[in-house]
Amino acid sequence: MTYLDKLKAIQDKNNSWLCIGLDPSLERLRVDFRKWDEPILPYNRAIIDATADLVCAYKPNLGFYLQWGAAGIIALERTIAYIPRDIPIVLDCKTGDIGHTQAAWGNGLFDEWQVDAVTVNPFVGSDAVLPMIGERPDNAVYILARTSNKSATQFQGDLPQESGLSAEVLRQSQTWPTAGHKGYVIGATYPEELAAARRLAPEANFLIPGIGAQGGDLAMSVKYGPDKVAGPLISASRSVIYASGGEDFAEAARAEALRLRDQINLLRQ
Amino acid sequence: MTYLDKLKAIQDKNNSWLCIGLDPSLERLRVDFRKWDEPILPYNRAIIDATADLVCAYKPNLGFYLQWGAAGIIALERTIAYIPRDIPIVLDCKTGDIGHTQAAWGNGLFDEWQVDAVTVNPFVGSDAVLPMIGERPDNAVYILARTSNKSATQFQGDLPQESGLSAEVLRQSQTWPTAGHKGYVIGATYPEELAAARRLAPEANFLIPGIGAQGGDLAMSVKYGPDKVAGPLISASRSVIYASGGEDFAEAARAEALRLRDQINLLRQ
Repeated sequence: MTYLDKLKAIQDKNNSWLCIGLDPSLERLRVDFRKWDEPILPYNRAIIDATADLVCAYKPNLGFYLQWGAAGIIALERTIAYIPRDIPIVLDCKTGDIGHTQAAWGNGLFDEWQVDAVTVNPFVGSDAVLPMIGERPDNAVYILARTSNKSATQFQGDLPQESGLSAEVLRQSQTWPTAGHKGYVIGATYPEELAAARRLAPEANFLIPGIGAQGGDLAMSVKYGPDKVAGPLISASRSVIYASGGEDFAEAARAEALRLRDQINLLRQ
Repeated sequence: MTYLDKLKAIQDKNNSWLCIGLDPSLERLRVDFRKWDEPILPYNRAIIDATADLVCAYKPNLGFYLQWGAAGIIALERTIAYIPRDIPIVLDCKTGDIGHTQAAWGNGLFDEWQVDAVTVNPFVGSDAVLPMIGERPDNAVYILARTSNKSATQFQGDLPQESGLSAEVLRQSQTWPTAGHKGYVIGATYPEELAAARRLAPEANFLIPGIGAQGGDLAMSVKYGPDKVAGPLISASRSVIYASGGEDFAEAARAEALRLRDQINLLRQ
């Protein structure tokens, strides 16, 4: 099954465009979890149990696991294995190395871990993408086009005017020959940028981080997010998984996921 | 001790600007190593034993370890622990995420693993760098400025003319306030680019990959590589660690490392 078909199926089943970022941050875990040697996996399992019928994808970020070295990576592997197989897993690692190294990343992430998609940094050009999904029809990459952070404008140019690095990435990368799907990371920070990205890449799936604290942009994410096959991944992390620091953390995560899903769905009508 | 002082000390002690990339590739390991459950660590230990008096740094690349999941990361942790502490370790991971994620990478790589430097991808701007070395005076990042791969020119602009992305990265990033050192990755592919990078960043240490197969550029690497404190890291990986696929792999790696070091030193005279 292609990545977009898998995504579309779960978006229909769960009636959801919500993607939850699984970004473990030890200091925000419930106190009694912190006493365990390995708190990440049980925390993630509780979050997944509480939200698996409300999401269209989970997005673990590699950096939050690597911060505990091999112990964190073991927790990541087990988290990936625990996610129901009909829910796409996007590993957020922003990898972007040259040819033979990027092939090694592809072996690890797609073949060893069996994730569905990964985020990719395009600084080095097509070498970052072709070894990953050139010959993997069931997988996808989300190429960084416009990130949601403050310093994004330092190098990424003026996307609304379709000039500069972000616009060039969107234009050029669509021509790269890949069996797998090329989607894009587009921060929800400014609506004009979402509109421009959709103009430049009408067929691509979008991964849209940056909602949550900035809920005002949700309407534009819904307006410009969908492609011709599927809806976007509208992604929230901390606002969901740390909705409560108390014993009710899983119930609170479910409540916040439900609220976000329904808020998105209201805007879709 | 600052990163540059540590680097300078080992460059003097070993009379070397050679950096060896520790990039395990299972299909190139000696046949009898492949039969082991965990071949990476013993292979790396043999390479390190054979070359530790000939190098100024080791550079393991994260992707080559992650391709075996947690097992590879355990081998990486043990490889890092095995490297003599007076030899700088540059973790080549090309990380470049936004603020709080990049802080997690910093925790993992500098605090947990105790590496000395990491490679960083500047696509997202200063957010990729400040959480890493903003407050770590003994550490360094090597920011991708001009990569050595063929598709580098797709987005990186015309560095010899000092225009485009690579030139902008070199210009802007030097102004970012950091306690640690900001070096740059400059591919040895074209001498004009090394010269331009040195003009734009006169004080920065350079990590120069791309020698080995392309030995002709070594002269320019030596000419434009050194900064005012230390020499560059001139990096070779496969040509050294897989110099032989037979039982003499460690001796062959030593012979190739010696040849490269002495070739560099001849050009320094």
